[in-house]
Amino acid sequence: MKILILNAGSSSLKYQLIDMEGEKLLAKGICERIGIEGSKLKQNVNGQAYERIAPMKDHTAAIQLMLEALTGDKGALSSMDEIGAVGHRVLHGGERFTASVLINEEVKEAIRANIPLGPLHNPANLMGIEACEKVMPDTPNVAVFDTAFHQTMPKKAYLYGIPKEYYERLHIRRYGFHGTSHRYVSKRACTFLGLDYKKTRVITCHLGNGSSLAAVDCGKCVDTSMGLTPLEGVLMGTRSGSVDPAVVQFIANSDGLSVDQVLDILNKKSGLMGISCKSSDMRDIDDLCDAGDEDALTARDMLAHSIRKYIGAYAAVMGGVDVIAFTAGIGENNDIIRRMVMEGMEFMGAKLDTEKNLKNRVETVVSADDSRVKIVVIPTDEEIVIARDTLAIVSGALMD
Amino acid sequence: MKILILNAGSSSLKYQLIDMEGEKLLAKGICERIGIEGSKLKQNVNGQAYERIAPMKDHTAAIQLMLEALTGDKGALSSMDEIGAVGHRVLHGGERFTASVLINEEVKEAIRANIPLGPLHNPANLMGIEACEKVMPDTPNVAVFDTAFHQTMPKKAYLYGIPKEYYERLHIRRYGFHGTSHRYVSKRACTFLGLDYKKTRVITCHLGNGSSLAAVDCGKCVDTSMGLTPLEGVLMGTRSGSVDPAVVQFIANSDGLSVDQVLDILNKKSGLMGISCKSSDMRDIDDLCDAGDEDALTARDMLAHSIRKYIGAYAAVMGGVDVIAFTAGIGENNDIIRRMVMEGMEFMGAKLDTEKNLKNRVETVVSADDSRVKIVVIPTDEEIVIARDTLAIVSGALMD
Repeated sequence: MKILILNAGSSSLKYQLIDMEGEKLLAKGICERIGIEGSKLKQNVNGQAYERIAPMKDHTAAIQLMLEALTGDKGALSSMDEIGAVGHRVLHGGERFTASVLINEEVKEAIRANIPLGPLHNPANLMGIEACEKVMPDTPNVAVFDTAFHQTMPKKAYLYGIPKEYYERLHIRRYGFHGTSHRYVSKRACTFLGLDYKKTRVITCHLGNGSSLAAVDCGKCVDTSMGLTPLEGVLMGTRSGSVDPAVVQFIANSDGLSVDQVLDILNKKSGLMGISCKSSDMRDIDDLCDAGDEDALTARDMLAHSIRKYIGAYAAVMGGVDVIAFTAGIGENNDIIRRMVMEGMEFMGAKLDTEKNLKNRVETVVSADDSRVKIVVIPTDEEIVIARDTLAIVSGALMD
Repeated sequence: MKILILNAGSSSLKYQLIDMEGEKLLAKGICERIGIEGSKLKQNVNGQAYERIAPMKDHTAAIQLMLEALTGDKGALSSMDEIGAVGHRVLHGGERFTASVLINEEVKEAIRANIPLGPLHNPANLMGIEACEKVMPDTPNVAVFDTAFHQTMPKKAYLYGIPKEYYERLHIRRYGFHGTSHRYVSKRACTFLGLDYKKTRVITCHLGNGSSLAAVDCGKCVDTSMGLTPLEGVLMGTRSGSVDPAVVQFIANSDGLSVDQVLDILNKKSGLMGISCKSSDMRDIDDLCDAGDEDALTARDMLAHSIRKYIGAYAAVMGGVDVIAFTAGIGENNDIIRRMVMEGMEFMGAKLDTEKNLKNRVETVVSADDSRVKIVVIPTDEEIVIARDTLAIVSGALMD
């Protein structure tokens, strides 16, 4: 079966077409500036690039153009009927969704009900779903949630220490994000190492522009660093990560800003960008560090420090750790950060091999031969998880 | 020399009189409801209680009454001239004070300059200082800061991931509190265990109504859980500890509250109180747990979970730990919390002896004989640190 994977943002739509026989990537593309002047579609099929500049007034128009591109001269399909199902990445499943699900009216209603928890993403995800229903009315749609994998967390990990009514009435709790990646990477790391996933304690470090860590105890997420929103946790590209909640009050009162304005600063102008004053991209930060830039060096130190603390915390949560897995942009490609993070972690049985660690971008063991804790790099692949879940659900056999 | 120790709050004044020959406690007392109707002084000298109900319009009046009580029939002094110096507990020393200091005009100015960082406590501390200057003009005053011990933290630990200008312009950073306690307990634990303080990695767990942990690496604080304010960190009696900063925004926008109102909830109605809906006192929570109260059990689980995470994090920060020390109300007296916190920490070399752990309230080793990491209970004594610093400074010999 050929499965289309959609990741709809408010003004963009990323897609992949995967042939599940052999899990082969057939096409990959993006519609940009949907609803904005200068809409553009870019597609790549077998290394062959295709671009089309055309108005896309909404997600329905974008999906129509995408289908034209996929079935056109430089496409990968002769007809859109070849698409067996569509898998949608959906940000927030709240407490309702603990796994992927076939989309029907009730599911859409539940995704809509979670808009307060994912105000930017869930409406865009819904637009993607409804556009597909309109343009491909006979093709089943599946929702794969960023939050679902974390729903196994125990109360002590997901509740905040705030009055209980806020959980009951407003559903304020730790949800966690990047769930599809944590799920893929934790399991893949065990398979790669020949370990039994259901008997292994894994800490997954998804370090990209947005970053989160998860403690995965015998296949179940027991804690994660992102919280109610993707702001909490470690330092990120433009996000502050955790701060004293009183910082919000202090900035608001000192500068006469609203709480929304302060949160905007914490989400968009903080992190590596805020500290370095130059870039949110770790590659730039590394270059600046090489040039001796003090602020960049501080930013890199802070990033490594914040990751170390979570690794220590999650080892404590699970009473030890067997595998530490690095993934995503920084985790897969940045041997400096991995080295800084893993330095001096022998007390928990984890010893990096600094030579092996220089290897990036591929599945690889980077721990020393005598390290009890295996440290690995595992390139993440959220799309393949979405595709597999979608296939399993439409063929009536979802399993993990 | 006899030294008076003062801890001035906005409407209260706690005091102790200590004879530094043998460090003997001569008197202990409190003035309550200063500036409010029904002011009262309570004092205890050698087990003999004394109470006086009398108006105290301000801190000066309170200190006058205190001196009357100390020199009266049931007092401990024949004349206030016997007081060689006064040691003041001051909350916030900002970045200016890295140690205790003899108070002069410039120091008072600096304490005043830190009022934005300690808006409730610093003004009260200043009132206590100025009252002493008025009533005992010839007696030297020393300031001992709650923040000073933490000033050795490196940048990567004390900076938040927010735009750099907020640190430079508004001095927003992690300061940490309970410094006097962390300093006393970390050092005392080493002395008690016969270890060299300058070669030992200690995690101090000050767990009371307010709680914080500190990583003390070879005598220097390298990280601590409280931040810009005493709100951040682990779950506390009525304080939430760390939450996603977006929680502030979510509550404010959902319930139409100001940021100050939300922070008031996080400071005063959260923590054990907010989760249990019944009490902020751990003794009550334990009783409720015994009776099977679900919310209390959740609150206790959350408390232990949050402490565990910091212990793991700080072990990672220091590349391992040699001593874990518990202190303050909960830390000294609650063997259940200590057991929950230390369960399964063998991976870092820490193994509790559950029998020894039943011993409370005294200096004691509670780790198993074969535990590489020593786990100890050390009753805190902030007053003795204040008294020693004061004596050292007025006799011109401050040292640590």
